[in-house]
Amino acid sequence: MNLSARVLTPPPRPGVLQLLEGVLTHASMSGGASRLAFLRADLGRELTELDVSLSELGVKNGSLAERAAAQLLRSPGKRLRPLCVFLASRVGEPSSRAGVQKLALACELTHAATLLHDDVIDQADLRRGAPSSRAVFGNAASVLGGDFLLLRALRLVQESGYSELLPSLLDAIDAMVYAEALQLEQQRTREVDLARCEEVIAGKTAALFRWALHAGATAGGLEPGLATAIAEAGAGMGRAFQLVDDVLDLSGNPEQTGKALAGDLIEGKMSYPVALACIRDPELKSALDTARGDANACAALVPRIAESGAIEATQTEARRSASEALQALEALPGCAAKRALISIPTLIVERVK
Amino acid sequence: MNLSARVLTPPPRPGVLQLLEGVLTHASMSGGASRLAFLRADLGRELTELDVSLSELGVKNGSLAERAAAQLLRSPGKRLRPLCVFLASRVGEPSSRAGVQKLALACELTHAATLLHDDVIDQADLRRGAPSSRAVFGNAASVLGGDFLLLRALRLVQESGYSELLPSLLDAIDAMVYAEALQLEQQRTREVDLARCEEVIAGKTAALFRWALHAGATAGGLEPGLATAIAEAGAGMGRAFQLVDDVLDLSGNPEQTGKALAGDLIEGKMSYPVALACIRDPELKSALDTARGDANACAALVPRIAESGAIEATQTEARRSASEALQALEALPGCAAKRALISIPTLIVERVK
Repeated sequence: MNLSARVLTPPPRPGVLQLLEGVLTHASMSGGASRLAFLRADLGRELTELDVSLSELGVKNGSLAERAAAQLLRSPGKRLRPLCVFLASRVGEPSSRAGVQKLALACELTHAATLLHDDVIDQADLRRGAPSSRAVFGNAASVLGGDFLLLRALRLVQESGYSELLPSLLDAIDAMVYAEALQLEQQRTREVDLARCEEVIAGKTAALFRWALHAGATAGGLEPGLATAIAEAGAGMGRAFQLVDDVLDLSGNPEQTGKALAGDLIEGKMSYPVALACIRDPELKSALDTARGDANACAALVPRIAESGAIEATQTEARRSASEALQALEALPGCAAKRALISIPTLIVERVK
Repeated sequence: MNLSARVLTPPPRPGVLQLLEGVLTHASMSGGASRLAFLRADLGRELTELDVSLSELGVKNGSLAERAAAQLLRSPGKRLRPLCVFLASRVGEPSSRAGVQKLALACELTHAATLLHDDVIDQADLRRGAPSSRAVFGNAASVLGGDFLLLRALRLVQESGYSELLPSLLDAIDAMVYAEALQLEQQRTREVDLARCEEVIAGKTAALFRWALHAGATAGGLEPGLATAIAEAGAGMGRAFQLVDDVLDLSGNPEQTGKALAGDLIEGKMSYPVALACIRDPELKSALDTARGDANACAALVPRIAESGAIEATQTEARRSASEALQALEALPGCAAKRALISIPTLIVERVK
């Protein structure tokens, strides 16, 4: 793809870079100017290229599966997972920039594929502040759209020049499917079990973050010890990300999150903070069971959950995972990419959407 | 896996072998006895092993995704696709029997994965004469069950020792997703277009049959020219298979097919014979549009479709594809596997379920 024309006119800075710049500018770290230049020049180009690929993928005049995919892909996401791929690869020396670009795209498409299937599972009408694909095109098209994106992701890894990463991506997707099934089962049994919640978090979110960093590190040619450390950091970031997600469901601003408040309660999801609140306040569970499906009744129970201290405790858990991720990243050799990477756990726990 | 114990007691003969034996016994071909011995000894073992793997896969006490998969896998299917993998590999000399077994299993699992997603798309309550997975476990579990099986299939190919076949399997699944999306769109637009019907048939069914024979031939080490010929035969068999499926929907015995009569009409599917009937009897379409969703009204229109000659013409088209497949198979060197293979197109067009 010819990028030169696009580089002449400065590309719009992807939102995640603005956030990263914010974290880096406020942190009193040395070398701020060169770091920002690195972010704007190199990463800016890669993320812009990613957005071009994403917008080209789900074409509006394609098959129903592609149009269902396009409905999701055209809503701007945070692109945190591909950013992790790019940054991890830059800690080393990737043999193929084009290959890394494919890995990053594969990561975002895998994420998007699971969102399309999740929306069918949850019967969700809103996604990223816009009507969900299944709300516009129906459940059937959304299932096929997810299949379409999953296949595209696998093919990209296969063609990236780093096809040795395919088995680990299959593992990650397997873990995601297993976690979704577990969560669905928890919704049915209403079992209060924090260990189960951890299993769901590990599969649903941590697995793909782990793969993102592992894939980037592998493409960057990092030695196995460092690649493992960086993958562990990915798992920690993913856990923190999901815990914050669960917190935002209970305390976020719907205008910022793009999702209805207390959606998890309405759907009967046993998220980590909800399970913790039920353990601390044993009579809460039957109140939640009764309120399920009723948005107002669920919203009315949020203060009670907050009073149990479960939301705060979950935020603390998220910070703990983020700081473990930071520690794992300390093992990396100093470079601009490392400095950007270590700002991501902070970005994750401070995010409001 | 230790097979010796199982081989001591003769395994139950898989149904498809009984059918194959029937075709081979009735055909006045030479060497009948040795052919039957080959079928019973070698293929019988491979198909039994396949059934063992299938029954082990979707375990009843596994995750909800696995249980949803088990609900489908425990209903005996025809296993025609894995049979094609086995036979095509036996035309040559496969370097790894265990690898071929994995390819055959991958083929059946891919097929099963699409059935699980199709049942959600079609809101089907019956599959293989038993309650569909989505009817038992719900749409969400069926979506995840399909994802689970798809991943397992891809991983099997990756681990088979023939991982060079992964891109072509991804192509085949892509074609299947595209065809499902096209069919869904046709159901919405009610467009009468035989070329579209051919596209649906090519993606929905022919692509995986083609892959089955291509994969077997590749594993068997057949030279590229022969592997292409055998893949073409697969596409012909697949087209014939789908056309017969469409015919059985309109003229089959529900007790044999395990599906309701005229299910395609009820769902508003523009199958090949239905589109052909609408072309020959232009007023039929509005009658079908009105009857859609009403089982009795749809059944009442079947004789009118038959009167147009569309069912017979579709059967003729199926025979044409089957005979093209036979011609393509003629290029293969003479052997027991070839003789069994050339009976499959006949088996496909004569099947009643």
